[in-house]
Amino acid sequence: MAQFDLAIRGGTIVTASDEFRADIGIRDGRIVSIADRIEGAAREIDATDLLALPGGIDSHVHISQPSGPDVVMADDFASATRAAAAGGNTTILPFALQIKGSSLRACVEAYKKLADGECYIDTSFHLIISDPTAVVLGQELPALVKDGYTSFKVFMTYDDLVLSDKQLLEVFEVARREQALVMVHCEGYDAIRHLTEKLEREGHIAPYFHGTSRPQIVEREATHRAISHAEIVGVPIMIVHVSGREAMEQVRWAQQRGLPVHAETCPQYITLTADDMKGLNMDMSGAKYVCSPPPRDKASQDAIWDGIIGGVFHTFSSDHCPFRYDDPKGKLTPNSRTSFCWVLNGIPGVETRLPIFFSEGVSKGRISLQKFVELTSTNHARIYGLYPRKGSIGVDFDADIVLWDPKLKKTIRQSDLHHGSDYTPWEGFEVTGWPVMTIARGQVVADNGKIVGTKGAGEVISRGRSSLI
Amino acid sequence: MAQFDLAIRGGTIVTASDEFRADIGIRDGRIVSIADRIEGAAREIDATDLLALPGGIDSHVHISQPSGPDVVMADDFASATRAAAAGGNTTILPFALQIKGSSLRACVEAYKKLADGECYIDTSFHLIISDPTAVVLGQELPALVKDGYTSFKVFMTYDDLVLSDKQLLEVFEVARREQALVMVHCEGYDAIRHLTEKLEREGHIAPYFHGTSRPQIVEREATHRAISHAEIVGVPIMIVHVSGREAMEQVRWAQQRGLPVHAETCPQYITLTADDMKGLNMDMSGAKYVCSPPPRDKASQDAIWDGIIGGVFHTFSSDHCPFRYDDPKGKLTPNSRTSFCWVLNGIPGVETRLPIFFSEGVSKGRISLQKFVELTSTNHARIYGLYPRKGSIGVDFDADIVLWDPKLKKTIRQSDLHHGSDYTPWEGFEVTGWPVMTIARGQVVADNGKIVGTKGAGEVISRGRSSLI
Amino acid sequence: MAQFDLAIRGGTIVTASDEFRADIGIRDGRIVSIADRIEGAAREIDATDLLALPGGIDSHVHISQPSGPDVVMADDFASATRAAAAGGNTTILPFALQIKGSSLRACVEAYKKLADGECYIDTSFHLIISDPTAVVLGQELPALVKDGYTSFKVFMTYDDLVLSDKQLLEVFEVARREQALVMVHCEGYDAIRHLTEKLEREGHIAPYFHGTSRPQIVEREATHRAISHAEIVGVPIMIVHVSGREAMEQVRWAQQRGLPVHAETCPQYITLTADDMKGLNMDMSGAKYVCSPPPRDKASQDAIWDGIIGGVFHTFSSDHCPFRYDDPKGKLTPNSRTSFCWVLNGIPGVETRLPIFFSEGVSKGRISLQKFVELTSTNHARIYGLYPRKGSIGVDFDADIVLWDPKLKKTIRQSDLHHGSDYTPWEGFEVTGWPVMTIARGQVVADNGKIVGTKGAGEVISRGRSSLI
Amino acid sequence: MAQFDLAIRGGTIVTASDEFRADIGIRDGRIVSIADRIEGAAREIDATDLLALPGGIDSHVHISQPSGPDVVMADDFASATRAAAAGGNTTILPFALQIKGSSLRACVEAYKKLADGECYIDTSFHLIISDPTAVVLGQELPALVKDGYTSFKVFMTYDDLVLSDKQLLEVFEVARREQALVMVHCEGYDAIRHLTEKLEREGHIAPYFHGTSRPQIVEREATHRAISHAEIVGVPIMIVHVSGREAMEQVRWAQQRGLPVHAETCPQYITLTADDMKGLNMDMSGAKYVCSPPPRDKASQDAIWDGIIGGVFHTFSSDHCPFRYDDPKGKLTPNSRTSFCWVLNGIPGVETRLPIFFSEGVSKGRISLQKFVELTSTNHARIYGLYPRKGSIGVDFDADIVLWDPKLKKTIRQSDLHHGSDYTPWEGFEVTGWPVMTIARGQVVADNGKIVGTKGAGEVISRGRSSLI
Repeated sequence: MAQFDLAIRGGTIVTASDEFRADIGIRDGRIVSIADRIEGAAREIDATDLLALPGGIDSHVHISQPSGPDVVMADDFASATRAAAAGGNTTILPFALQIKGSSLRACVEAYKKLADGECYIDTSFHLIISDPTAVVLGQELPALVKDGYTSFKVFMTYDDLVLSDKQLLEVFEVARREQALVMVHCEGYDAIRHLTEKLEREGHIAPYFHGTSRPQIVEREATHRAISHAEIVGVPIMIVHVSGREAMEQVRWAQQRGLPVHAETCPQYITLTADDMKGLNMDMSGAKYVCSPPPRDKASQDAIWDGIIGGVFHTFSSDHCPFRYDDPKGKLTPNSRTSFCWVLNGIPGVETRLPIFFSEGVSKGRISLQKFVELTSTNHARIYGLYPRKGSIGVDFDADIVLWDPKLKKTIRQSDLHHGSDYTPWEGFEVTGWPVMTIARGQVVADNGKIVGTKGAGEVISRGRSSLI
Repeated sequence: MAQFDLAIRGGTIVTASDEFRADIGIRDGRIVSIADRIEGAAREIDATDLLALPGGIDSHVHISQPSGPDVVMADDFASATRAAAAGGNTTILPFALQIKGSSLRACVEAYKKLADGECYIDTSFHLIISDPTAVVLGQELPALVKDGYTSFKVFMTYDDLVLSDKQLLEVFEVARREQALVMVHCEGYDAIRHLTEKLEREGHIAPYFHGTSRPQIVEREATHRAISHAEIVGVPIMIVHVSGREAMEQVRWAQQRGLPVHAETCPQYITLTADDMKGLNMDMSGAKYVCSPPPRDKASQDAIWDGIIGGVFHTFSSDHCPFRYDDPKGKLTPNSRTSFCWVLNGIPGVETRLPIFFSEGVSKGRISLQKFVELTSTNHARIYGLYPRKGSIGVDFDADIVLWDPKLKKTIRQSDLHHGSDYTPWEGFEVTGWPVMTIARGQVVADNGKIVGTKGAGEVISRGRSSLI
Repeated sequence: MAQFDLAIRGGTIVTASDEFRADIGIRDGRIVSIADRIEGAAREIDATDLLALPGGIDSHVHISQPSGPDVVMADDFASATRAAAAGGNTTILPFALQIKGSSLRACVEAYKKLADGECYIDTSFHLIISDPTAVVLGQELPALVKDGYTSFKVFMTYDDLVLSDKQLLEVFEVARREQALVMVHCEGYDAIRHLTEKLEREGHIAPYFHGTSRPQIVEREATHRAISHAEIVGVPIMIVHVSGREAMEQVRWAQQRGLPVHAETCPQYITLTADDMKGLNMDMSGAKYVCSPPPRDKASQDAIWDGIIGGVFHTFSSDHCPFRYDDPKGKLTPNSRTSFCWVLNGIPGVETRLPIFFSEGVSKGRISLQKFVELTSTNHARIYGLYPRKGSIGVDFDADIVLWDPKLKKTIRQSDLHHGSDYTPWEGFEVTGWPVMTIARGQVVADNGKIVGTKGAGEVISRGRSSLI
Repeated sequence: MAQFDLAIRGGTIVTASDEFRADIGIRDGRIVSIADRIEGAAREIDATDLLALPGGIDSHVHISQPSGPDVVMADDFASATRAAAAGGNTTILPFALQIKGSSLRACVEAYKKLADGECYIDTSFHLIISDPTAVVLGQELPALVKDGYTSFKVFMTYDDLVLSDKQLLEVFEVARREQALVMVHCEGYDAIRHLTEKLEREGHIAPYFHGTSRPQIVEREATHRAISHAEIVGVPIMIVHVSGREAMEQVRWAQQRGLPVHAETCPQYITLTADDMKGLNMDMSGAKYVCSPPPRDKASQDAIWDGIIGGVFHTFSSDHCPFRYDDPKGKLTPNSRTSFCWVLNGIPGVETRLPIFFSEGVSKGRISLQKFVELTSTNHARIYGLYPRKGSIGVDFDADIVLWDPKLKKTIRQSDLHHGSDYTPWEGFEVTGWPVMTIARGQVVADNGKIVGTKGAGEVISRGRSSLI
């Protein structure tokens, strides 16, 4: 009998702090040896000239989420996990969304059912709380946290999701008591409504004005508000998808005062700008870039890099929220031509997150390999309670590894992608550095862009407490 | 016929920028000459060794405001203007409060009627907007601004007054369009409710916990929110009664970014602390100090002085909001013993504002005489559209003058005061510097603590646009 | 006998806080009455539609200063005070420069002799300390302060003037003890030398590189250093000629921490940029704009305005330091073509300061008339111990008044100026607002650009302590 | 033949990012395997319940440095490396000090000779530049950098060491060109001299006044100056031994502006205060705590922790600078009783650095184990060019490992220490967490406080470029 099921030979292991050449020995889906030479493996993979990185963890992914009547999200769990694996990920954390008026537990179970047996890589759910009734706060959430749903997400905008400040405070109290982590979508509902109505009155209805309707101030104000309310309660929070300098500075200011405020950013905020939403001559194709917060401008991209380099951001996620563009059930709802506010918010990105960040960050010399690993894998595992099972390459970790060719140049093309969307916002975007093989719990799932894994091999897993708590 | 009705002889005139000894000649209620020697006056007042200051303008005063069933505010227009005059003021700006569901115009007219013929000094109304309906926003406000009601006040807290952010934005839009100035009470409603409920659950119901229920973060958050929304609309605002460092720094940050954000502070924030609300061993007498925002601590007083000295604050007002303590229709409503939240908010201060600020500021060497005049008179006139009729000593200004003895030492005693309240929060407070005579439009109204003016001599006056606009 | 020597009729008086229409009655060189109507004057001047402003005080002027062998400064006291008067000024404060190795007292007396009987308007000397020996520090300075030389200037750069940090600290100690005010020229000597040598090695020798050799960091570092050393000693200081955002922010930071740090800026920093030093195709004509600190860029101009509006700056001076351009004893010393470092530093500006600031500030809506008066006259008088003799329009002040036409449009032309220089850096600069008559101690000195005053009418005056101390 | 020379069994490996239980296999002084189970080792060490950390690297250590006539530093290379090893260190970086007037190369060779054959653990030299002549700058430094002396240290104070700003700039230029890293001791020489003379004049001569003579402003000013000059040149720098909030904020501000400014702090700044220098009733025993910058106060300790937690600091070193107290050639030079300025600066600390930081940081819950490893080992290796040979636990790293008992409680006692000093500033200080075994390149050097290594086993090693460059 072979001592190892698999040996990865000759690669350079990179963790969030280190980098050294070594072989990796895997048995029963776990890493059991890291050594100058591993022999006696049933299978060997040659990783010469490649980096062996902890598999990407994408902690901000929307899948099969109800998004309105006659709307279908472009990815189900099978397609989303295939796409994620092809993009170098070994775990994703999608959301289980509570429908207003429904039991949160029931919603969770429904999602779990959608995912069971469908995933190519491991999956674990955050809870979106849209209706924090007494029962939800007092009974369902405590029980769900005990069952391993240790992170909540709340929204400060969107008609169907927005919580009042009072509700926000109540969710924060539960999080504090149950030691759960709250992710907050920070944009101010009333200001957006006000600006939207004004723009509509003025006839500014093209997708481009989506950005105008939610300027940085709107995000900054909500960020300040969320931080203040978390400070009142005394609870750690995670500000998700920070888009520019204004919100970033609020987070940094909180951190400097010693508050446990953490932050996430995404590929769209270092590569896209509001101008992308102009499409061709302000036509509907700008809708392909509509997401919230909207992409800003070059100066904001620089600010986000400042925050990444300066340690303000702890995670780099995709906020994958895929719709099809050329589809009656997709991004352009029937009313989209009457106002940008009817364009569905969200862009696909789970498959392209890692190459974009590697190329713009590591290949362009802005960040180290270690920082890349920290922001794309290790911190996700630590912050969302998956560590030390996942998030690094060490003995007894899940053998979740992506082999990365740091020199390989690629041009991102929709035709090469596996997600359910019919376009990518990064069509034609050139990158240096590419995930050439994804290994999840010791099994090769994606090999040079080809899915070779098994549907159902990925499990829906529960999580421990966040290490931030 | 005498060339002058009145000559003030031998005093030292102080304006917001200058200081020199001269006589003042008055005719028909106006200043007509400032000269080394005025002769030929029907009446002469000897101001040797006294300062001749522009009469105090108190732009934040609540009078006869409906404050709940079975509650009577301690001052009507007669008593309030008497008290104000005794305290060195020649103009006050109370509020006309819109009752929810009522026409704003009707409310204003009702107030005006209460004031007409009752005032000892000039009076002019701000508008409190509690119900910004389409009619109020689209018709009543524009018309009222044209009629000289050029400033609005809005609240971010209080059950009967709180506006949503959407409503706040709509009022800001009207103000921008009509060139009115909006005063904002910045405390976050939901956070206060949340903290109040928590404190009540924990049995913390004494007046002292009023302060605990609205900590500085609550004020800071609302201040940031108000500033952000004003920034979105592009309108100047006035943040009233700033109480401590946290909110002050938000204002300063806005000012440094070039935003037209102005700020006011009050005597309570440089002299009282939260501990005053403890009363005697946490008894109900702490209620005498209950106001909102609540007094903070010594460090906050220092921060407020930093802001005064550094130019963050533009006005120093009383926020006079008088209730009787030992009165069934006063501060302690029937439920007050069940929770601090039933104690009426507000303290009397129109009569003591100037001596306290002079003593703590000028006599203690923190500020110049010029700064005193600027923050107690000139800026009120400029900001609220009374300049150049009021707010300084110059040719053709209303002869609104207070003669001030900078050396006179006094101890503040309720027994010496003229306001309608049955106590003063500053009982026993020692001051150096005192208003020995108040002259309004050329008539002596108060003389050494004695009211010698005529009821009805003060008029309800309309105002021009704020010079901030 | 007429009651008044002079009446100024119908103008609008502006002080640092106020503005009202009134007549001004003058007797024996002093203002004795401000009234709705002055009659009985020996002479009347019609000021209808004009502003009556306190005469400009320029507290930063170099006259007849030794500037090297074979160099002659372009202005002596006669020409400088003529030019100043034509530009709306009624007092200037030039420097008495100590030559290294000489007695400070002797230097002062020599200057005084140059000025006596030559001045058209009042003049008073600051002391430049270049050699703080024990005698200077222990004997001369205390005696000179008692004689009314209440302000010193020290330099942190220039071969002949630079003080070490130790010397700086010693001068600060004397200033603290004697209650004198120290003006500090903040640029780092060593850094400038380092950068100059580097530029010269690289062949960058044109006047333009004067600016490159002293970037904003050099000014910022010295500003921080001066502030820190003043903080150590506990003495107020005045940072002169602040040129851009970097130094401005250091001053603002000090002010926010409550330190008595004051600041001055000049016309060159709101109107010129480094590009002006390029001349025509990098020729020597760029030398016409060479001064220190050098003009920066548009963003710095904005920062200076931010500081002016936000109260960071207390005085707006000219830093008049005039040399002739087309003159062997002027700006271009024989070595100037071998390196920018041999071009004499300094530009003329005493005659153009007020119109430029009025036009860019008041006429363009950036600042109020009051702020203009404060920064060009009142604060100079207060800060340098001339108040209440000078600096405002009030009873018993010197009748130093400039009549200003706020609507008059002019184009600045060297041919119209009275200074000794043969060029102006603002040739062709268009302004709105102009000083049409200058009255010094009740005598008309300049009338529509014509000098009508008397040489010697201006006196060398001593000063009291700064009101900052 | 055994596959491994040594196996460390059952410990928990901690790196700067990770933590997992594994065995470590060592061969030829290097780590060759990290696995769930290592067998076949010639020697096994049981690390059950212990942490296996990368050996401490102390990058700020003074050994055998000339410190004045008749003064002997308390440690030579033998005693210093013994003490370091006992304290959990496997590498130290002392300084080779250039004597003014001497060749730098000669000084380095002399030091190297002192170290050769004497060290118990690896040692590598920084260069102290006290006399940056043209030869030193142009020839010696470039050659020395090529030989692996890749870091310089410069001083902004001390009679024999202080560089002028000009010299500082010149050293920075060489560093930029040669890609060396400059460490800067930031305290302002002139200000210290000024304050010292003042204190001496006032009769304040006790050791306690050492602290008064170099307040935080003095450190802040020099820090700002060093940062500004590095910014001018465009070179990374390391601000060593930051002591409090003022300097820390300068560093943070630089980092936020994207400048490559790094910082170090030390045990004295999180545990000692200025009061320690009072000794017993202001006697000479306060001298035991005299070091520069001096310890500050509790608020400064908090500020340093803020900086540690917030990522401002990159290394935590000892600044070990040992003198004997009760020794005529020690801390108290003959003149010490006439002024604090004759007390030798420096305290011993190489042996106590790690336990103090672990206890105050990790055991008290302020920082993670990962942060501890990062600040005590990994970053030292990366910043000073020892990585990837040293600084972590990974395949092919030197087997430099310290086994740490995180629960062991100890009281620091001079009697237990191995350094050459006759006292420790931390006498009686209680810690939780202790290094129970130190393994350097695979050899046990210290075992439970006993030195079992071999003199000369440690080598003087050269280094590569800093990873900061």
